[in-house]
Amino acid sequence: MFRTLKEKVLKANLLLPKYHLVTFTWGNVSEIDREKQVIAIKPSGVEYDHMQIDDIVIVDLAGNIIEGTLNPSSDTPTHLELYKAYPNIGGIVHTHSTHATVWAQAGKDIPALGTTHADYFYGDIPCARSLSAQEIQHDYEKNTGMVIVEEFSNRKLDPVAMPGVLVSGHAPFCWGKDSFDAVHNAVVMEEVAKMAISTCFLNPLAHIDQNLSDKHYFRKHGANAYYGQRK
Amino acid sequence: MFRTLKEKVLKANLLLPKYHLVTFTWGNVSEIDREKQVIAIKPSGVEYDHMQIDDIVIVDLAGNIIEGTLNPSSDTPTHLELYKAYPNIGGIVHTHSTHATVWAQAGKDIPALGTTHADYFYGDIPCARSLSAQEIQHDYEKNTGMVIVEEFSNRKLDPVAMPGVLVSGHAPFCWGKDSFDAVHNAVVMEEVAKMAISTCFLNPLAHIDQNLSDKHYFRKHGANAYYGQRK
Amino acid sequence: MFRTLKEKVLKANLLLPKYHLVTFTWGNVSEIDREKQVIAIKPSGVEYDHMQIDDIVIVDLAGNIIEGTLNPSSDTPTHLELYKAYPNIGGIVHTHSTHATVWAQAGKDIPALGTTHADYFYGDIPCARSLSAQEIQHDYEKNTGMVIVEEFSNRKLDPVAMPGVLVSGHAPFCWGKDSFDAVHNAVVMEEVAKMAISTCFLNPLAHIDQNLSDKHYFRKHGANAYYGQRK
Amino acid sequence: MFRTLKEKVLKANLLLPKYHLVTFTWGNVSEIDREKQVIAIKPSGVEYDHMQIDDIVIVDLAGNIIEGTLNPSSDTPTHLELYKAYPNIGGIVHTHSTHATVWAQAGKDIPALGTTHADYFYGDIPCARSLSAQEIQHDYEKNTGMVIVEEFSNRKLDPVAMPGVLVSGHAPFCWGKDSFDAVHNAVVMEEVAKMAISTCFLNPLAHIDQNLSDKHYFRKHGANAYYGQRK
Repeated sequence: MFRTLKEKVLKANLLLPKYHLVTFTWGNVSEIDREKQVIAIKPSGVEYDHMQIDDIVIVDLAGNIIEGTLNPSSDTPTHLELYKAYPNIGGIVHTHSTHATVWAQAGKDIPALGTTHADYFYGDIPCARSLSAQEIQHDYEKNTGMVIVEEFSNRKLDPVAMPGVLVSGHAPFCWGKDSFDAVHNAVVMEEVAKMAISTCFLNPLAHIDQNLSDKHYFRKHGANAYYGQRK
Repeated sequence: MFRTLKEKVLKANLLLPKYHLVTFTWGNVSEIDREKQVIAIKPSGVEYDHMQIDDIVIVDLAGNIIEGTLNPSSDTPTHLELYKAYPNIGGIVHTHSTHATVWAQAGKDIPALGTTHADYFYGDIPCARSLSAQEIQHDYEKNTGMVIVEEFSNRKLDPVAMPGVLVSGHAPFCWGKDSFDAVHNAVVMEEVAKMAISTCFLNPLAHIDQNLSDKHYFRKHGANAYYGQRK
Repeated sequence: MFRTLKEKVLKANLLLPKYHLVTFTWGNVSEIDREKQVIAIKPSGVEYDHMQIDDIVIVDLAGNIIEGTLNPSSDTPTHLELYKAYPNIGGIVHTHSTHATVWAQAGKDIPALGTTHADYFYGDIPCARSLSAQEIQHDYEKNTGMVIVEEFSNRKLDPVAMPGVLVSGHAPFCWGKDSFDAVHNAVVMEEVAKMAISTCFLNPLAHIDQNLSDKHYFRKHGANAYYGQRK
Repeated sequence: MFRTLKEKVLKANLLLPKYHLVTFTWGNVSEIDREKQVIAIKPSGVEYDHMQIDDIVIVDLAGNIIEGTLNPSSDTPTHLELYKAYPNIGGIVHTHSTHATVWAQAGKDIPALGTTHADYFYGDIPCARSLSAQEIQHDYEKNTGMVIVEEFSNRKLDPVAMPGVLVSGHAPFCWGKDSFDAVHNAVVMEEVAKMAISTCFLNPLAHIDQNLSDKHYFRKHGANAYYGQRK
């Protein structure tokens, strides 16, 4: 019934090893069907090498399994919180990609240091506040999503212009128009995270000029975009 | 006679180059058959490209060769000490994987900095104390094992919850339920070692919150685990 | 009509992923035909995997499309400024290669630290001054080229002996006799940029001796060159 | 006439790209035939992809071409000095491998920090003194070899126990029993150079214990060696 959606989500999950974003099973991609109010997501702990279309799990927005025989990713409640809070996003990726995870472990935002960053992320990529002991002990994965939403709300960030976040002490989540777009943003975040570490070594005070950041972001996004073949 | 065990240990050894954990012959994997009281282990100094099933050496727990024409790994006495001390482990891996070796050379524990670490290693990964001149000069490889066991005893560490160690000035040993599980843990240790170096550059005071560490470790291990498809 | 030129520029563009200089579409190569006063350049935002010869765009020196149905790279005006200012260059490459981009983000010259650098770049590779708010807001890509030319003029640099530059907060441009030579120089810049970061960590005061720099540069370039098979 | 030697040297040269030790043509391997008093060496500036057996050049110890139509590597005089000074070495490799070159650029010895290093190099790997202006301007490549020999003499180093060196501001040379052994040592030097950079970041005072260094070196070398299958 959800064959097209499951096939796309399978493909998007298989992009994670292709782009060297995951070790073993440490990552998952989902996509939402807003009309049918379901998401398709990677099964928990299944290796990418052996993953089949029918391993992809369909769950409703309350987290009930609608189709599939495997457990969905243990991070499913985080995905659901984000889909519920942000009606404009269609796909979500969670990885432990090396350099983005380094920033999450350091508990620091990834500073916007150049146009590579500004082409995709409008401003510093936020590291959300740590979860409290209670938030960790009960409904941990759901609370992870809620803390992300809280952080975006506190900082007045638009999830379309800032399609990713670091969970402190953990790793990144990224999102996008659909699952492919979310993976695309995860690749970008990993690359800018990697460059930012060395940049901070060479120049701890480095930061992109706001005009340059605006120029690059709006060259690719919004009504006046002129990058690419979109007309 | 030990064909199945040797075949598995051959396969486990061949995972080391696959996961980029070894240069040349710098690594070895063994597995124990607790009933027959023997281990199968890589031969010393043989290249992975040419290794055959009958190159794998079977030795008893006193170190005598039971089957095979080649010398076993020169690190065999270290493996034997660990198998004798820890009845719950079934496979052992030694590598000089780049980033874990960096921590061993620095003589420092790999600090637990994030959930990637906490998913597999419960707490900081210990760097054992240096061997004395006498421990180095006589029965060096056996003493390497004994110093590991001493370190775990002093720190009251459970080898099941802490499936690896750094030998100071040398490199890591990892272990697990069997040889494949040991290799799995060696891959994880290398990745968390790599991330920890850059994390310490960005934030020298970083450390995972104990609640978060508990949550992730017990999400995957023990009676209340809910990660994956295990039921 | 421009088939040979387009074929060469297509090949030169495909070298960028081969040498790991680009992620997604983040890079472009052009080559000029000085007689016909046109350049061939990569189309904007098209992936390397699918690029065909007829996707390559031919534009005149005023930026008008002469042949091709796609938009040329959004960086085309930068390329044109450089071709107009430097009659001795035949090909230009722009990438966001990781380590050269790190130096651009840090806003620092890549210091000449060894003979690898001196074999290709005569002196420190300059990081041009930042663009002003006005230069960013109007004719940004053209102004990027003009700021490069200004920097070379201020520093009295010869673009033949210094075949590349960093754009502050952005990324490198490289050039050469033709598009292949430009890509060659982009590979070299990325490698020397990578080595320079770690060298500066080990020895912040390191710099190549001027005599050694001269020796290596002129061993490969100019009338007395004796490296290679050129006679 | 020198077919076997040339074939071996071709193969040894092709190991350089296989082990990721070279970019473009930045490296060369030679081997000496002590009886016939000739060396076989890579031609200058020829790409590894296209190299054929008859591209390998045979030169005598005075540097005269005995067989071959191409120019030998411009570094040939350095190789010749080392072969003349050290009768026990049979093969030499020069590369600009990334991390060994970083140490050469920093002008610092690669400190012996662990057993990986001690298994192959007995003590810190020396960075030779810088060449004087005069040594650079006349007979540069020959003087490079002479400065290496001077450094080993001053430090009373045995080239068999220390099969490599850094040329300050330049890059490493390695050697061994034959060309394959020299390449093997070049791979090891690159790996220990890489690990040493991060180790020095984590612990600037790190150094291997002398007893441990002795144990590992003599476990693999000399009359009492017991590593591997050599009996």
